Amino acid sequence: MELRQISRDITDWFSGSGPMSDIVVSSRIRLARNLAGHRFPGSCSVEEKAEILDVLKSVLLSLDLGDEVFYLSLDKESELARSFLVERHLISRHHAMASGPRGAVITKNESFTAMLLEEDALRLQVLRSGCRLSECAAQIDKIDSMIEERVEYAFSPRFGYLTACPTNVGTGIRVSVMLHMPALKMTGQIEKCLAAAKDMNLAVRGLFGEGTEAASDLYQISNQVTLGVSEQAIVSEFENVIIPEITEYEKAARKQLLTKQAEALDDKIARAMALLQNAHLISSQEALFLLSHLRLGLNMHEHMGVSTPAIERLCALGAPGPDRHRLSIRTINRLFMLTLPAHLQLNYGQPLDATRRDALRARIIREALNPQ
Amino acid sequence: MELRQISRDITDWFSGSGPMSDIVVSSRIRLARNLAGHRFPGSCSVEEKAEILDVLKSVLLSLDLGDEVFYLSLDKESELARSFLVERHLISRHHAMASGPRGAVITKNESFTAMLLEEDALRLQVLRSGCRLSECAAQIDKIDSMIEERVEYAFSPRFGYLTACPTNVGTGIRVSVMLHMPALKMTGQIEKCLAAAKDMNLAVRGLFGEGTEAASDLYQISNQVTLGVSEQAIVSEFENVIIPEITEYEKAARKQLLTKQAEALDDKIARAMALLQNAHLISSQEALFLLSHLRLGLNMHEHMGVSTPAIERLCALGAPGPDRHRLSIRTINRLFMLTLPAHLQLNYGQPLDATRRDALRARIIREALNPQ
Repeated sequence: MELRQISRDITDWFSGSGPMSDIVVSSRIRLARNLAGHRFPGSCSVEEKAEILDVLKSVLLSLDLGDEVFYLSLDKESELARSFLVERHLISRHHAMASGPRGAVITKNESFTAMLLEEDALRLQVLRSGCRLSECAAQIDKIDSMIEERVEYAFSPRFGYLTACPTNVGTGIRVSVMLHMPALKMTGQIEKCLAAAKDMNLAVRGLFGEGTEAASDLYQISNQVTLGVSEQAIVSEFENVIIPEITEYEKAARKQLLTKQAEALDDKIARAMALLQNAHLISSQEALFLLSHLRLGLNMHEHMGVSTPAIERLCALGAPGPDRHRLSIRTINRLFMLTLPAHLQLNYGQPLDATRRDALRARIIREALNPQ
Repeated sequence: MELRQISRDITDWFSGSGPMSDIVVSSRIRLARNLAGHRFPGSCSVEEKAEILDVLKSVLLSLDLGDEVFYLSLDKESELARSFLVERHLISRHHAMASGPRGAVITKNESFTAMLLEEDALRLQVLRSGCRLSECAAQIDKIDSMIEERVEYAFSPRFGYLTACPTNVGTGIRVSVMLHMPALKMTGQIEKCLAAAKDMNLAVRGLFGEGTEAASDLYQISNQVTLGVSEQAIVSEFENVIIPEITEYEKAARKQLLTKQAEALDDKIARAMALLQNAHLISSQEALFLLSHLRLGLNMHEHMGVSTPAIERLCALGAPGPDRHRLSIRTINRLFMLTLPAHLQLNYGQPLDATRRDALRARIIREALNPQ
């Protein structure tokens, strides 16, 4: 599998499809596992790491994962390639930056990754677009069980699965959803909403780490408690309480924008279009910020039937590529992902300094949004 | 003279014409005078003010000022009307905000104002577009002499003309030029340049008071010394030393933009056009900021023969009004002035809150820059 080849399109989990996709961009479940009879990776010698890697790699590659898979030796990949995998959420930042033998088994559709020798010996991840936690849970449980038939996991009858970080002990599960909440920001309610999420023992992060949430309006909400609760209970709480509650806030804020700040909303969308269609230099942060406004406008049109002057113009913008349809969320997300720094450089074929990246990013977006 | 009528067009001194008008927007000379046998206005009773006002008004209105004149009783004008006169630089902020009897004699072409009972009993002002200090000096001297034939000015053989503020004693002259220096800002050299101006004993202010220079890139440079130097010496120092020196800095910065930051320059101009053509809400500060970029682009085209992709698109933008020519500096300055808060409201016919002003300003600019 050539990374450069997959860098030319968005990954399926970011395609903007699936249930509740006007707010819930994606659903993800990760499981942390270690092997019985071995240390956690942080305490392993290089030899022991290599041994664990061999075992896990051969097990993972022998399974039927429902799709073609490819394997990456991360210690042999370039820094640019590893950054690209982080941008695509196929590996964690920790996994990219660690040292020593480590790898990743990834299905071609990118919905499944097994990170080998991350903080734990094995981290499984299932990632899908829209609100689909039950599907993610079913898939990851099935794979987890298949692996457990071949290896012995580090497990304590008292605590459950043992993990390098105590916060993962127990089920070892991390459930998270990526939510797009621009209206809560525009109406000045986002801080209150995030504080409420933290009160519910949830962790809140940006799409691409610290600070990016403010630019992209994308927030990743995940559980913090893994001990003493079942996987099912966590997934069910997300599906029945957390997601409905938070998305309801965002929906109310979108309605409020329409009734009380319609002119400001149109101004923001019109400005975002104008800048994306005309700028010659755009930073990654600004692209995230501006594309977020287009995504909001398009989703308000598709899911709430909203038609303001700016939104009508937005909907009529050309989509890139040979077939020019009306602008879609997929196109916006594609521009969003393909203009991230590592995507941009991998696609271009060589490293670029910040100004060259800003110029190339601006050109790609300009051409995509200015139909000939 | 109906203020609302003159609020529909720009004043001549801001038309963007005249010598060196790519950098020197306008030239202004003010003289401060008081009447012998009377206190300075700040120490006058209302009765004494009224008496001085009567004398000066009848003298001024009896003179041939080279153009039709109109008289305004400022204490009877609305706050909006007075703010409008300040935006047009026809009276000072101090004159607008003072209390008690006071007025202004203004020529219809707006090149001459006599402020009656400002800080001093009489402040004469001549204001012209471009670098024209000698013309301003000749005109103001002539008017000053005509007045002095009819009234006795407060004058000390030792100090010269006596004024309310000691910094004006002597010649009572304030010479100033309004300079457009966007390239010095973009190249990060403006602070150094302004510090050098201050070292030359010059005062530096923004177009519309504190803080606006940063938005509009328009700086008003004026003399601080009035005692012990002749009027001619001050005007000559401006024409032969100060203006050539400072404009040379700005010209060098414009060349530097082209050779070293051409892409950033095009980005700024393209963004300014895009926002002005598309925004639905624009604050006064932002309009000043964005229009400044258009003025720079157009002047670089006209005076330096520069043609970049963004500048070419800029030059092709439609001008407002029934006759659609290529975009001119006059059009940019007209939008600049007509969307100032008081101009906007006077033209509209009634006061508007900030959001309504921002919406109206955006609409006026959008329509002007989007030819049908």
